[in-house]
Amino acid sequence: MTATLVDRIGLLVRNADDDGLPDELPGAAVVIEDGRIAWIGRAAGAPDADARIDADGRCVVPGFVDSHTHLVFAGDRSAEFEARMAGRPYTAGGIRTTVAATRAASDEALLARATGLVAEARRGGTTTIEIKSGYGLTVEDEARALRLAATLTPETTLLGAHVVPPEHAHDPEGYVDLVVGPMLTACAPHARWIDVFCDRGAFTVDQAERILVAGRDAGLGLRLHAAQLAPSPAVRLAVELGAASVDHCTHLEQADVDALAGGTTVATLLPGAEFSTRSPYPDARRLLDAGGTVALASDCNPGSSFTTSMSFCIALAVREMGMTPREALHAATAGGAAALRRDDVGVLRIGARADLLLLDAPSYVHLAYRPGVPLVTVL
Amino acid sequence: MTATLVDRIGLLVRNADDDGLPDELPGAAVVIEDGRIAWIGRAAGAPDADARIDADGRCVVPGFVDSHTHLVFAGDRSAEFEARMAGRPYTAGGIRTTVAATRAASDEALLARATGLVAEARRGGTTTIEIKSGYGLTVEDEARALRLAATLTPETTLLGAHVVPPEHAHDPEGYVDLVVGPMLTACAPHARWIDVFCDRGAFTVDQAERILVAGRDAGLGLRLHAAQLAPSPAVRLAVELGAASVDHCTHLEQADVDALAGGTTVATLLPGAEFSTRSPYPDARRLLDAGGTVALASDCNPGSSFTTSMSFCIALAVREMGMTPREALHAATAGGAAALRRDDVGVLRIGARADLLLLDAPSYVHLAYRPGVPLVTVL
Repeated sequence: MTATLVDRIGLLVRNADDDGLPDELPGAAVVIEDGRIAWIGRAAGAPDADARIDADGRCVVPGFVDSHTHLVFAGDRSAEFEARMAGRPYTAGGIRTTVAATRAASDEALLARATGLVAEARRGGTTTIEIKSGYGLTVEDEARALRLAATLTPETTLLGAHVVPPEHAHDPEGYVDLVVGPMLTACAPHARWIDVFCDRGAFTVDQAERILVAGRDAGLGLRLHAAQLAPSPAVRLAVELGAASVDHCTHLEQADVDALAGGTTVATLLPGAEFSTRSPYPDARRLLDAGGTVALASDCNPGSSFTTSMSFCIALAVREMGMTPREALHAATAGGAAALRRDDVGVLRIGARADLLLLDAPSYVHLAYRPGVPLVTVL
Repeated sequence: MTATLVDRIGLLVRNADDDGLPDELPGAAVVIEDGRIAWIGRAAGAPDADARIDADGRCVVPGFVDSHTHLVFAGDRSAEFEARMAGRPYTAGGIRTTVAATRAASDEALLARATGLVAEARRGGTTTIEIKSGYGLTVEDEARALRLAATLTPETTLLGAHVVPPEHAHDPEGYVDLVVGPMLTACAPHARWIDVFCDRGAFTVDQAERILVAGRDAGLGLRLHAAQLAPSPAVRLAVELGAASVDHCTHLEQADVDALAGGTTVATLLPGAEFSTRSPYPDARRLLDAGGTVALASDCNPGSSFTTSMSFCIALAVREMGMTPREALHAATAGGAAALRRDDVGVLRIGARADLLLLDAPSYVHLAYRPGVPLVTVL
């Protein structure tokens, strides 16, 4: 077993302070052994190691935890994006376009695309990533998406209830029967989570509840897309069911904020979607001030947010959502970990996974202060 | 002399269509010889070459021309950025902070910082860059900044009139005398351009005119910072004097738009500054619809826009400023070239500089569709 010392860290951000060390530690060092943090502390007291990386005064932060992506897909919707930005009507787009392209694609093509995007995300600092299905919408195609996703990450999510597919357009309840029946049976072995897109034009709150309860009974953890387009009681449903995360939360009523602050469900905000759909951003400040836990994620998908960049999400959160740079970094790391109910990532302490990002900057503030600039190296 | 063939370009964007080839050429190839474009056309008809780069169906566009940066400086203003984003008062900031740090820095430190930022910009696709002085504000310190900048680019700009330095606070006219006298004499040999920050809290329109006329008499081309904070007759002054560019243009009156549309002065928009100061964005649509020429530039500086990313500026221009992806790309390439009165960059035609960007995408639309993702390789 080889021990690597990451030495002369100008500022180490840990997302932890209950182990005798401060959350932000200047003049720090970390020893990595077997992919875990074996030692952490002041550089002056660092032990010997087999190899040494000199951080040269730069800032080190935990790897980003991107808890919301849709990476198993085929096709391109840049023309739809361009029309939307120009305010032009565009009828050939929408999730159904991606569903048709995904169904028609080979396993190899889907895996190559997803693998490329995971690699791109990693170059941008994402060391833990969640991937949803949701562009298959048949038993076989959803199971295939999850089987492929599971080769890339343990954080896989069945989103069979992304949208009602065209062949069930006149029988949405029949489609829900399919999701909670044969689809769930076929997909559960490849999934850790179940999710529903509960919003205007997608699934109702009652349908979402039925699907989430069935998923829970099948041993899956719960997540929910809600309140992206309009306020919805789905946010409170997620909290009541003890979902790990409710995602988007763009339109919240006070009762939603109160519920999130009082429960264990993380509010996962996805500013890339608001950027790329030219929509109003969620009010992170309100959630944080109420005591809620906030995560930031990319929502990477070809329709509404085709970015893998968590740094970009951090910059938007600071510019548009009332978060401080420190809060935004926390949300993109420990917040994402909480949204995945993980305690081994998003934090730098002894025993945690050694997912360290070396920033080409003296401080994490630069993630927002230097927007668009790639500052991250994964150690 | 070695000829390199860039082959199998899925889509070539040229910013030209007066040479028998369309502006956007699918299935294209380019031959590079001695840093210039020696041949350009359909891949099927490409000549032999000594070396070959396979673009594999990806998009190639002209290198970005960043016509507005302030890269010769020392110090960091991340704390000021953080306070501004949080709405907290912060009295230790402003241009004067950077002036003090820059004056105190060694030549080596200033050049190392500027060189690093030029390299970062190049990695992001910027193949032509303008650099201003403006953090010295003494004869010696301005001349030093320009001498250092001239080792990095021929596009150097004397911005002695950035702000009135503290030692002239009670005698701004005396400082203008210095700028148009000994400072101009000392700096002109190292500068191609002269610029003035003409806005609330900086220099008046009369002072700007005096400085620009003196610069013109010394053989320098004219640029002007104007209308960043409030509408100003300085925009029309720039057009009347035949300035190559008037920069910021955030607050324009109809007479300004009309003047820009009727003149030869480029309106250079700097959305990174609006992003990082949380200010309203300029209305590029209005300028384009009136027939004006628009450039996009980074305004890279440690106070109000610490980004080198032209891709980020393109994404903001599409999201926030009413530009189409094609217009934004044009502004970031040919627009910047026009703002520097250059016809050898920002365009891909025979004889032009072979500054080619290979995008990791089938189309330039992805520069806006995939915000925050590094898509660019400089060939």
